[in-house]
Amino acid sequence: MGVSSNRVEDFSSHHETSVRMSPASAEAVMVVAMPPVEIHRVCLPPSKTTFQKLKQRLSEIFFPDDPLHRFKNQSSFTKLVLALEFFFPIFNWAPTYSLALLRSDVISGLTIASLAIPQGISYAKLANLPPIIGLYSSFVPPLIYSILGSSRHLAVGPVSIASLVMGTMLNNAVSCSADPILYLKLAFTATFFAGLFQAALGLLRLGFIIDFLSKATLVGFMAGAAVIVSLQQLKGLLGIAHFTTKMQIVPVLTSVFQQRHEWSWQTIVMGFGFLAFLLITRQISMRRPKLFWVSAAAPLTSVILSTLLVFLLKSKLHGISIIGHLPKGLNPPSSNMLYFHGSYLAVAIKTGIITGILSLTEGIAVGRTFAALRNYQVDGNKEMMAIGFMNMAGSCSSCYVTTGSFSRSAVNYNAGAQTAVSNIIMASTVLVTLLFLMPLFHYTPNFILAAIIITAVIGLIDYEAAYKLWKVDKLDCFACLCSFFGVLFISVPLGLAIAVGVSVFKVLLHVTRPNTMVLGNIPGTQIYQNPSRYREAMKVPSFLILAVESPIYFANSTYIQERILRWVREEEEQIQANNGNALKCVILDMTAVTAIDTSGIDAICELRKMLEKRSLQFVLANPAGNVMEKLHQSKILDSFGLNGLYLAVGEAVSDISSLWKAQP
Amino acid sequence: MGVSSNRVEDFSSHHETSVRMSPASAEAVMVVAMPPVEIHRVCLPPSKTTFQKLKQRLSEIFFPDDPLHRFKNQSSFTKLVLALEFFFPIFNWAPTYSLALLRSDVISGLTIASLAIPQGISYAKLANLPPIIGLYSSFVPPLIYSILGSSRHLAVGPVSIASLVMGTMLNNAVSCSADPILYLKLAFTATFFAGLFQAALGLLRLGFIIDFLSKATLVGFMAGAAVIVSLQQLKGLLGIAHFTTKMQIVPVLTSVFQQRHEWSWQTIVMGFGFLAFLLITRQISMRRPKLFWVSAAAPLTSVILSTLLVFLLKSKLHGISIIGHLPKGLNPPSSNMLYFHGSYLAVAIKTGIITGILSLTEGIAVGRTFAALRNYQVDGNKEMMAIGFMNMAGSCSSCYVTTGSFSRSAVNYNAGAQTAVSNIIMASTVLVTLLFLMPLFHYTPNFILAAIIITAVIGLIDYEAAYKLWKVDKLDCFACLCSFFGVLFISVPLGLAIAVGVSVFKVLLHVTRPNTMVLGNIPGTQIYQNPSRYREAMKVPSFLILAVESPIYFANSTYIQERILRWVREEEEQIQANNGNALKCVILDMTAVTAIDTSGIDAICELRKMLEKRSLQFVLANPAGNVMEKLHQSKILDSFGLNGLYLAVGEAVSDISSLWKAQP
Repeated sequence: MGVSSNRVEDFSSHHETSVRMSPASAEAVMVVAMPPVEIHRVCLPPSKTTFQKLKQRLSEIFFPDDPLHRFKNQSSFTKLVLALEFFFPIFNWAPTYSLALLRSDVISGLTIASLAIPQGISYAKLANLPPIIGLYSSFVPPLIYSILGSSRHLAVGPVSIASLVMGTMLNNAVSCSADPILYLKLAFTATFFAGLFQAALGLLRLGFIIDFLSKATLVGFMAGAAVIVSLQQLKGLLGIAHFTTKMQIVPVLTSVFQQRHEWSWQTIVMGFGFLAFLLITRQISMRRPKLFWVSAAAPLTSVILSTLLVFLLKSKLHGISIIGHLPKGLNPPSSNMLYFHGSYLAVAIKTGIITGILSLTEGIAVGRTFAALRNYQVDGNKEMMAIGFMNMAGSCSSCYVTTGSFSRSAVNYNAGAQTAVSNIIMASTVLVTLLFLMPLFHYTPNFILAAIIITAVIGLIDYEAAYKLWKVDKLDCFACLCSFFGVLFISVPLGLAIAVGVSVFKVLLHVTRPNTMVLGNIPGTQIYQNPSRYREAMKVPSFLILAVESPIYFANSTYIQERILRWVREEEEQIQANNGNALKCVILDMTAVTAIDTSGIDAICELRKMLEKRSLQFVLANPAGNVMEKLHQSKILDSFGLNGLYLAVGEAVSDISSLWKAQP
Repeated sequence: MGVSSNRVEDFSSHHETSVRMSPASAEAVMVVAMPPVEIHRVCLPPSKTTFQKLKQRLSEIFFPDDPLHRFKNQSSFTKLVLALEFFFPIFNWAPTYSLALLRSDVISGLTIASLAIPQGISYAKLANLPPIIGLYSSFVPPLIYSILGSSRHLAVGPVSIASLVMGTMLNNAVSCSADPILYLKLAFTATFFAGLFQAALGLLRLGFIIDFLSKATLVGFMAGAAVIVSLQQLKGLLGIAHFTTKMQIVPVLTSVFQQRHEWSWQTIVMGFGFLAFLLITRQISMRRPKLFWVSAAAPLTSVILSTLLVFLLKSKLHGISIIGHLPKGLNPPSSNMLYFHGSYLAVAIKTGIITGILSLTEGIAVGRTFAALRNYQVDGNKEMMAIGFMNMAGSCSSCYVTTGSFSRSAVNYNAGAQTAVSNIIMASTVLVTLLFLMPLFHYTPNFILAAIIITAVIGLIDYEAAYKLWKVDKLDCFACLCSFFGVLFISVPLGLAIAVGVSVFKVLLHVTRPNTMVLGNIPGTQIYQNPSRYREAMKVPSFLILAVESPIYFANSTYIQERILRWVREEEEQIQANNGNALKCVILDMTAVTAIDTSGIDAICELRKMLEKRSLQFVLANPAGNVMEKLHQSKILDSFGLNGLYLAVGEAVSDISSLWKAQP
């Protein structure tokens, strides 16, 4: 026992004193003890006060990226420059901006403008807003983003999902046709709150909240939304005048077929013709990324062609609905339309938060994707602030919710955008359109907007990703399906909530029923692995080595306790059946037990007592730092005694078996 | 490279063929390769179909205790006997029941009866029910439990927490004084639903749901409830006639002090006198467990004494409220009073579910505690069914929610109870009381019931447990405080919900911001540990070895990716500052990464690409079985190549450094 006392720390003394094994005592172990391996003590982590721990924990939660590391050891002037660069990323690239870069940016800016103008008009209709709002939203926000944003490829403007959600949620509260002014007010107010919420998330560094929208959830959600939106566009494509405003699949389909008498064959022929054209150009660009301009130019081309067609044939064609008069001129201020009181405020806030989360998710995912392709970093929290301020400013200048659009950013990237100047070029093009070209859209037919929307949202149905989810992770696929069918049959926000619930449930399920397994030794090594996976791993006679693959929490402490007792029972039955060596010791490998709470500690304590009553020794191997700390604080280590705690399973096995040999 | 191909499995071939390393190739590694350790391949777990995996997963979720293991390899007759014993645990002990056991059971049964009668009356008042219901509830349920229940020490009857919650929740919907019949109907209906819910949880083996009430939550909840209940009893102790029916601390205290003119000095003197007597006897029994009978007999003694006192002095004492007339006779049937329709059904169901969960939690915790002391097993799911059926039967025989009470079970255990017969003895004593002794309670004063309740609930305030929580786990302590103040200031069910929310949030927080750390080698071993904890652990030059202590999920994949990149950046900065060896390889120890989802896989893939761009090799060590499976299915292992996957960190370090030496 004189040897063992070197091994296990004396917990009554201050732990700092016994962290390092002195060379002398290490040698003593080597000489006196029989086991072939040296035995190491299990140490406590360095002691910290509660305040220090809290500080470390909070800095991991809120500042995991250590945003101030650039400022360390710098002169005050450099610090000032760095701070400017930090808050206004435009200072990063503006000083070294060149004509060559400008050339690329002009080309890409014009390309995305040709996409942004028809899409802006279409998406505004999706949100039940006047088409002009979509153009306003493609002017102010991109300018602000180009100063504040850190992504170089994000093409900013209205996007389909956020437009759809805003349209659905607001229309449930206020009919857009009955009271268009109130509806518009609510839309601006929701945009303001979306921006406020986004900026607040970024400022408070709570960006991890959007991580709870898992990829699986989003795949299902976007596919569901795309299906609903496409079906709803049948209104425009078939020329139906009276259509449901609901967003579930059943009322939409009922509407389509009940209003068959309103179908207009001229609209149908032209609408599906242009839809086919758009889909074919989309297919061409997808097959050959170099021909990205084919699909990029197609929407504007079809808008021009269809407008011309309708204008020329206007005497012959009846019943084709057109956009009509659009006001010329710049964004009017709208801060006087924000609505901070009254009964609809709650709806506006709720809509703002949900569209805010969704547009953040899209914007940041898109930004990260292209940043990774070009090997630069996009800071999530900073992006949130940029998108948030852009939306708050937008809400005061007649814009609704905007973010980085995936399809336009891809075109921007492929067209060779180098910096946020491409957004400025796009905004300037929109400006010219707003000032001079608005009358040209008078005869633009609504079916072409429907066709543009369908072409855009069809890309959101990512069945390959869904199939991959099914192949890799059935539960993820289940979450995906839940959100898909939730959106289709229940409602957009509820479908999203269900999917987030399923994702969280999945995390909890993993904690509630963690994996436990028996380990065996791989001969000739100190490696212990599961024999059912590694056939060379051999069980050690008289030992039962178990591993728990999860923290031990209130939610699983009873389960783990009972499951371990079942392992012991099954092992004893097997030994009895095979006349093997009697079981003498149970080793619990705690490597993957990354945390423990008070219920978990009680379970370990209880387990030790129960095994002791069966005359089985219970040993813990390799507890993680914070687990060790809690075991120590709760004083249950004392009951484990000197041979109850080892640094590695291998050391435990060799030391305990040598003790058995010494005291037969 | 010829050597390496033995090491990493060829994933295109069926993995079964390459699980075992042939002795020849193992030798080849030993002879040709330079590293001192033999290199082992990482294997996939044995392949299973989706159906097999689902089956295994479901059996771990619902049948972790393998309830049918007793039935394996038995004759049909033995199986029948075992099944009878399984469903009616009375068959376990009845055949070997002896006179000696009966003697112990009679003593303990009479002891708990003397406690159960006054407590039954008091708790019924706590639930705003007629006192007689409390006695009815101490008669039928114990009889049923003695047949179905598997605990030998549980003393069944009404308990304070469930009574309090039922009283609060029902009284919010229907005033017990304005419409006592409807209130009674709702109480029986809630009891029925509590039983149904409990039995369903047991039948569907969903018992783990009650595990979500962590110990920390319960400590806070019970203390809060005890404080509220004690304050509410001031009504009886001070003799106040008009008292609030609310259960928050503010209205209760307001009521106490606003009604000062109703305080009656005779009630106060006698009430606090008996309260002091009860508290002193409680203290005596706590100090000396052998004197358990002192506190067990005290309530009945004080009921008798106070009743006598009030009876003798009735001409002189005015304004002392007494129980009054109680009907003689057995439980009347009440199945006709169950209420399955109408506007209050939702309240009854909600109350039933919440009291059901709370009483289950108490009953099972108590059963497990005493089972552990006597080293027998209590099956949670079976207990739920027993308690559930007992409550369903109770709701049809004028009983309200019952379960195993902690205080009475402790007395039962200390009085030497051996089997559930002590419950039968208790029920018989209650039967005699109901049939013959009811008139004796006519003059029992209400203040003595208040004193009994206070004495009972004061034991629920476990400040030592709260202090231990603070010492061991600050977040657990926070959950405890949340539930304590939630109950005190908001409401009982909401306080509970907040506390469960905090507990779940804690689990999610651990997943959202997991611990990551750098590992170093402990010289002379293959053990890698954190150098800040083990000072002897040395960093390996040119390597950065990182460990992630959590599954990699959607909720943390971005964090982990960014955190690892920060570790790499910091390591490179440190190397630059010290002119050390350039970093060449990042090893990720996946031992504690017990699960991964599709977002996690994408993060790993992304990370590999980013590190590759910095010319850093990225290596995974020891992925767990299901993680390995998913990495394989998602095909990202192919991109890691031959030197991207090792069984242990030690093997990775020695193999990669020997490769570097071979190709400088």
